[in-house]
Amino acid sequence: MQNFNFFNPVRIIFGRNTIARLGPEAAKAGKKALLVYGGGSVKQNGVYNELTAALKKSGVEWVEHAGVKPNPVLTHTREGVKKARENACDLIVAAGGGSVIDEAKAIAAGAKYSGDVWDFFCGKAAVKDALPLFTVLTLPATGSEMNAGCVVTNEELAQKYSAHGGALFPRVSVLDPETTLSLPPAQVANGAVDAIAHLIESYFTTADRDVAVTDEVVHALARSVVAATTRILKDPKDYDARASMMWSATLALNGLAGCGYGGTSFPNHVIEHSLSALYDIAHGAGLAIVMPAWFKVHLEKAGPERLEKFGAAVFGVKGAAAAIEAFEKFFRSAGAPVRLSEAGIPAADIPRIAKNAMGLITLWGMKLTQAEVEEVLRKAE
Amino acid sequence: MQNFNFFNPVRIIFGRNTIARLGPEAAKAGKKALLVYGGGSVKQNGVYNELTAALKKSGVEWVEHAGVKPNPVLTHTREGVKKARENACDLIVAAGGGSVIDEAKAIAAGAKYSGDVWDFFCGKAAVKDALPLFTVLTLPATGSEMNAGCVVTNEELAQKYSAHGGALFPRVSVLDPETTLSLPPAQVANGAVDAIAHLIESYFTTADRDVAVTDEVVHALARSVVAATTRILKDPKDYDARASMMWSATLALNGLAGCGYGGTSFPNHVIEHSLSALYDIAHGAGLAIVMPAWFKVHLEKAGPERLEKFGAAVFGVKGAAAAIEAFEKFFRSAGAPVRLSEAGIPAADIPRIAKNAMGLITLWGMKLTQAEVEEVLRKAE
Repeated sequence: MQNFNFFNPVRIIFGRNTIARLGPEAAKAGKKALLVYGGGSVKQNGVYNELTAALKKSGVEWVEHAGVKPNPVLTHTREGVKKARENACDLIVAAGGGSVIDEAKAIAAGAKYSGDVWDFFCGKAAVKDALPLFTVLTLPATGSEMNAGCVVTNEELAQKYSAHGGALFPRVSVLDPETTLSLPPAQVANGAVDAIAHLIESYFTTADRDVAVTDEVVHALARSVVAATTRILKDPKDYDARASMMWSATLALNGLAGCGYGGTSFPNHVIEHSLSALYDIAHGAGLAIVMPAWFKVHLEKAGPERLEKFGAAVFGVKGAAAAIEAFEKFFRSAGAPVRLSEAGIPAADIPRIAKNAMGLITLWGMKLTQAEVEEVLRKAE
Repeated sequence: MQNFNFFNPVRIIFGRNTIARLGPEAAKAGKKALLVYGGGSVKQNGVYNELTAALKKSGVEWVEHAGVKPNPVLTHTREGVKKARENACDLIVAAGGGSVIDEAKAIAAGAKYSGDVWDFFCGKAAVKDALPLFTVLTLPATGSEMNAGCVVTNEELAQKYSAHGGALFPRVSVLDPETTLSLPPAQVANGAVDAIAHLIESYFTTADRDVAVTDEVVHALARSVVAATTRILKDPKDYDARASMMWSATLALNGLAGCGYGGTSFPNHVIEHSLSALYDIAHGAGLAIVMPAWFKVHLEKAGPERLEKFGAAVFGVKGAAAAIEAFEKFFRSAGAPVRLSEAGIPAADIPRIAKNAMGLITLWGMKLTQAEVEEVLRKAE
């Protein structure tokens, strides 16, 4: 077991009828919020009304910043920063999924920084300060509601990069599983795949194979995601399954699932970021394509040990090949694509995708060559 | 799944050679520490030297408050409060196991309170403020290093009661598994039993049986404790097993293992508190006696469902009776007593123990009668 630090000060309010509780929490931090949300699903499902009523009741004014895209983009983020500054917002409130929360984090940091917000993503500046952030999560997937990272795509450069820093932890995140009862199957699938992806990265890339407690935690959360997905697809109105999924996805990327593995490496995410930077594809769908292929390469290079252990513990199957099959079968059963062709991405594009991935790989100093990325993508044709 | 709040702002520094890192952390909070420790094991294992060298280097002075007992007592706690006040200490540093950290928490709160520190334990006052607390954990068991509770025994009244409050969260806790390499088997056993006890209380007392994610987390941590204990007893110098045990015990009572069960009830702890309030018995040993007996009553009253599930997931056994046997076998294999007689406590004392337990049961408003407590204890004769 390798040395690690763990610190996560996010206050979670979880359960039914909890959205109104964000009002008094937000009022502790400021008077005027930038209210960040996406395409309007929060207006359809009642979250917007509940949240704004709560802000009003607590004496918090707000300025709206709507229209966050599923893979949030830099131009819209810059608009948010401008709006937060011009309106002298002293806090940010985000309502939506991981994309909304990610863009809100970037705006929170950008509003406190004199330079361009992209500096945090391209390695030019470190996040040192940010406006206090409060979130209402409506889509379990990214874990952004309980961590200090965010991902934004620079459309001009076709770069989907991330920023990190303690100042980006939300102060309070409200997780009401009832807001997820209306999520369509495709979003359930994408969220489940994303949560699984967060659980497997450190587990499979660690050089330390004796981290018993975290292995157990990873298995536990992965089993929980798989079981909840199965239940939700069968009965979308199953509150307890929605709740289990929501908390599992949060725990999958709040730091716990990496403790003791000795640093985190994200090869699957790095490759996927190029897919969703270059094509109009959901992050979860991209991951469902990359992971099985990456496992095949992992099996050839690192041997069967981890796949065997994970497969037995999570899917109840024996052997590394069966584990990869079980991953694919699970992703497929959830409705996610597992090959590039299924997402309409031509094999001829593989060199271009791999070249794009090298940007983040170089920035992060990862030991991964363009040829190795291509090797993974070839197995996903 | 029931609504819950989760908040845990403790900064964990985990691993080898990490004690020195507490110096700069402590220096952020103050200039003069009350240094709390126990019977001197920290002097034998080098922790005291490392820690005081780090404090010195960071410019933090300290006043010593040594001699904390395994079940910390009120008179010694009051002395600590007095010492902290007289010396104008502006922070507390604790080095030891859960007892040392618990007493340190009580002192931290007492030093900021004009009344008697026992007020926090007997329900007369709520903890609203406390001196900042920094800990070096040397005995994995209680989870006190990452939660906001503490237990102190009022010797005069023979009451082992607890206090709680957000101000009691340590700022930083250092967990160096190397400090545990010299722990004798009895302390390993007591720690393991205590961690298991923290995992089972909410799991078995919840009325909500559909909390899939937390069930998985509880099973994962329990399996990890059992596996680590077995490895440590075989090879006390097994660093990775010690590390796994240390982090498992911390996670067992940091809030995670109760999420969604709908409030926490601690019947086993309440009964055990009377044992260690009245007799010279370690908390873990007392729990090993109470738990199998409590499970027998639980089986009669609540049915086999939870025992079957836990037994299958953690011990790989089938059926509720087999699960209780597996608990007993595990406690015994670790060297813990599982009957009152094995700890030299006469059956004739059962009414007296049950009467004592009613103090805390009444204070906490638990639905448990003296006859029911006696019923449990009779099964532990």
